Amino acid sequence: MPKPDKNEMGVTVKKSDDISEWYTQVIQKAELAEYTGVSGCMIFRPRAYAIWEKLQYFFDTEIKKLGVQNAYFPLFIPEALLKRESEHVAGFAPEVAWVTQGGDSKLNERLAVRPTSETIMYDAYAKWIRSHRDLPLKINQWVNVVRWEFKHPVPFLRSREFLWQEGHTVHAKKDDAETEVLTILEIYRRVFEEMLAIPVFKGKKSVNEKFAGADYSTSVETIVPSGKAVQAATSHHLGQRFAKSFGIEFLDEDGQKKLPFQNSWGFSTRSIGAMILFHGDDKGLVIPPKVAPMHAVIVPILFDDTKEKVLKAANKLKELLKDFAVLLDDRDSYTPGWKFNEWELKGVPLRIEVGPKDVVNDNVVVVRRDTGEKCVVRTKEVAGKVKELLDGIQKNLFERAKSWLKENTADVKNWDEFSKAVEQKKLIRAAWCEKTECAEQIKEKTEGVKVLNIPFEQPKKVSDECAHCKSSAKIVALFAKSY
Amino acid sequence: MPKPDKNEMGVTVKKSDDISEWYTQVIQKAELAEYTGVSGCMIFRPRAYAIWEKLQYFFDTEIKKLGVQNAYFPLFIPEALLKRESEHVAGFAPEVAWVTQGGDSKLNERLAVRPTSETIMYDAYAKWIRSHRDLPLKINQWVNVVRWEFKHPVPFLRSREFLWQEGHTVHAKKDDAETEVLTILEIYRRVFEEMLAIPVFKGKKSVNEKFAGADYSTSVETIVPSGKAVQAATSHHLGQRFAKSFGIEFLDEDGQKKLPFQNSWGFSTRSIGAMILFHGDDKGLVIPPKVAPMHAVIVPILFDDTKEKVLKAANKLKELLKDFAVLLDDRDSYTPGWKFNEWELKGVPLRIEVGPKDVVNDNVVVVRRDTGEKCVVRTKEVAGKVKELLDGIQKNLFERAKSWLKENTADVKNWDEFSKAVEQKKLIRAAWCEKTECAEQIKEKTEGVKVLNIPFEQPKKVSDECAHCKSSAKIVALFAKSY
Repeated sequence: MPKPDKNEMGVTVKKSDDISEWYTQVIQKAELAEYTGVSGCMIFRPRAYAIWEKLQYFFDTEIKKLGVQNAYFPLFIPEALLKRESEHVAGFAPEVAWVTQGGDSKLNERLAVRPTSETIMYDAYAKWIRSHRDLPLKINQWVNVVRWEFKHPVPFLRSREFLWQEGHTVHAKKDDAETEVLTILEIYRRVFEEMLAIPVFKGKKSVNEKFAGADYSTSVETIVPSGKAVQAATSHHLGQRFAKSFGIEFLDEDGQKKLPFQNSWGFSTRSIGAMILFHGDDKGLVIPPKVAPMHAVIVPILFDDTKEKVLKAANKLKELLKDFAVLLDDRDSYTPGWKFNEWELKGVPLRIEVGPKDVVNDNVVVVRRDTGEKCVVRTKEVAGKVKELLDGIQKNLFERAKSWLKENTADVKNWDEFSKAVEQKKLIRAAWCEKTECAEQIKEKTEGVKVLNIPFEQPKKVSDECAHCKSSAKIVALFAKSY
Repeated sequence: MPKPDKNEMGVTVKKSDDISEWYTQVIQKAELAEYTGVSGCMIFRPRAYAIWEKLQYFFDTEIKKLGVQNAYFPLFIPEALLKRESEHVAGFAPEVAWVTQGGDSKLNERLAVRPTSETIMYDAYAKWIRSHRDLPLKINQWVNVVRWEFKHPVPFLRSREFLWQEGHTVHAKKDDAETEVLTILEIYRRVFEEMLAIPVFKGKKSVNEKFAGADYSTSVETIVPSGKAVQAATSHHLGQRFAKSFGIEFLDEDGQKKLPFQNSWGFSTRSIGAMILFHGDDKGLVIPPKVAPMHAVIVPILFDDTKEKVLKAANKLKELLKDFAVLLDDRDSYTPGWKFNEWELKGVPLRIEVGPKDVVNDNVVVVRRDTGEKCVVRTKEVAGKVKELLDGIQKNLFERAKSWLKENTADVKNWDEFSKAVEQKKLIRAAWCEKTECAEQIKEKTEGVKVLNIPFEQPKKVSDECAHCKSSAKIVALFAKSY
């Protein structure tokens, strides 16, 4: 089979016309993901995995500053262990992939492929924790997890297997645990806003949307240009419920045996999906510089008679930019135009063109991926300019995303406005009564709109009545359909 | 339950008396591993996982220099896909853990939990590779794998789930592929010799011990003080067999469709087990400085009247050592003696004691974990001395390991000597005929001794006859029982 031609290579649909098809094309053509024979199980190709590595590095560095240590707990959780905490198992059992055979033998007990690791970790914690001196215990793991969902899978955003980190900490005092919940949530905000240039809302999950087994859950949430919300990360306070179920106790300084307080928190590779949807455009992927595996690509404009000189200049340029991740695309078999399209599709933040005239003038042309803006830069000033442009792109993407989010947020007073905003696929802010039945009715009437969270920074309340049931409403909540 | 007393805390058996019990105690008491309810599935606790992170960092940096990119392929491999390469599946099928249920539904096709990822990766490679321009393709992943073995599990060394990296590369030319096999093997040698201070032998696997589906396999091998061999890492040349089975073809520069040549290579968390067995002593774990998560522990000697001064000096010391990973153990509730034992058990390379007299004299006492040697160091010279001692420990551990290995290697001429060396649990070097039946007979007669590899650096051949069957022997092979 020959290489696909230029048209096939590029994205053939506009993002605004059919975002779902656009997304499917981008993840494949920009070589981010590949489908496999198992529905919902996808390949994270190097271009996507490298973004994940950047996020890992940032988050891992931050949690290590807090004294969190990495570990690895088994993939397989015996059925009885998974069932020990009743509220928790009810939340996960319908989505568990079960191992029932080892080689030719039937196993005595089914083994769950971890959907999350509270149960297997806390069983061990009960062995390790004896005294207040063993606390706080702060362990994190970077692992694959499996949730055998039956909804339509969407690569990155809703896949049966995904990659995440899960932190599980134990504290002697409730206060310390609750402080940590918010400290971690703030790091998640930074992962999304500072690294991925995605604005998010910090808040508390409603009772019916909280993590199965948690006292309460907090989250960072956003809505992406498909009009669907993404729960970007969660940080849960588990209280003492798991400690009770798993027998985690400690001897406190006062000589008393006590139950500790626990947290768990995680974010996953769905963050990559949100990034693709937020920043991509009709030409393909746009990667924020802070998570870009490659900052710039140098494309030399080659003609037979000046080839040698231009290549020399391009190599010198690469040397000048050695503090950045730069590729010199000196492939002979593609035209500059082909290369421009390819690297735009793949979302590289900057393209640097160097041709015969540039060599004569000791210039290069630098092109921004986010705006298409071109500028001519003196060769000797290129490193400083690249730094400045990368910072500018990071900032611009975030500002643009914030504007988009603002335009696509609706403050609604009543059910009419609410319904209209649902149709327009907006992020809805509405006064809400906090009743579980009310949330369930909203979900039913709207075919899936749910409470994302109750933002900590409460927006101005435009009504004192619940936008749905009209009963008294103390808070404003965020609503949308979600992945 | 109260804290265990000092005797219970330490290792209660000598390494030379019962190395198996010694190992079991060390991995638990030094907090490296924890057993779980599922046989063969263990917890990698933070102290062990941190060693793995050091090895990952070293190896990952080296392979990225070669242009290898990280990715992530699904955990689940459909049964039909696993079976596509007949020799390969025969090698792995008896050890596969099978997922047969998702939630409450029975799956249409069983899914293998990956024992290794050749099949799922090469199915994708067939989609991605079209032209010589797509080659070489070099992808690696750091993942968990499961091999449902029925042998007695040994944490780190033989567990049903373990962590590893698997690199899978595709090359247009056989030469390039074969060169890479050895380039990677050399990085493995460095992982073991330079990082873990474990001497290894590079060589080629015998035909009956090669990887299922490979043209040939190479490995680094060693024997540890339990008298058992550890296959430390392997680098396989797969030839074109998988390319044929999975339909991987490329259009070469000459316009011809061709089958590419493939390699795969991996090393795993079993390396940690080898390290524990090689360097540990009767006091517990000894960690080579290059993989030690903590280089030194500062233990202040505290008395009521001088406490403040000593703590101040200890904090200053920590500041002077900020380029190293240093813990200041200022816990009030333990005596210095208790702390000495604890950190020896946990293998920290250096202990730095600072007491009232040291403060007066502006000295500290530095104690080596490997030799127990103490030296008094001027405070202002401590950073330089710590660096020097860490280098010295790394070197000493490797030299000591090499001497031990030399003493425990036997060059044997005939079956009498061979059998005696088996009894003495030595690493055996013997002339060998390279026949599969001969290797099988040796294994049977000795209850498990096998050919480890045929070293590239051939030792002096002490006979021209196979030490077992007496037929003509061209090479010397390494033999031992192995994990």
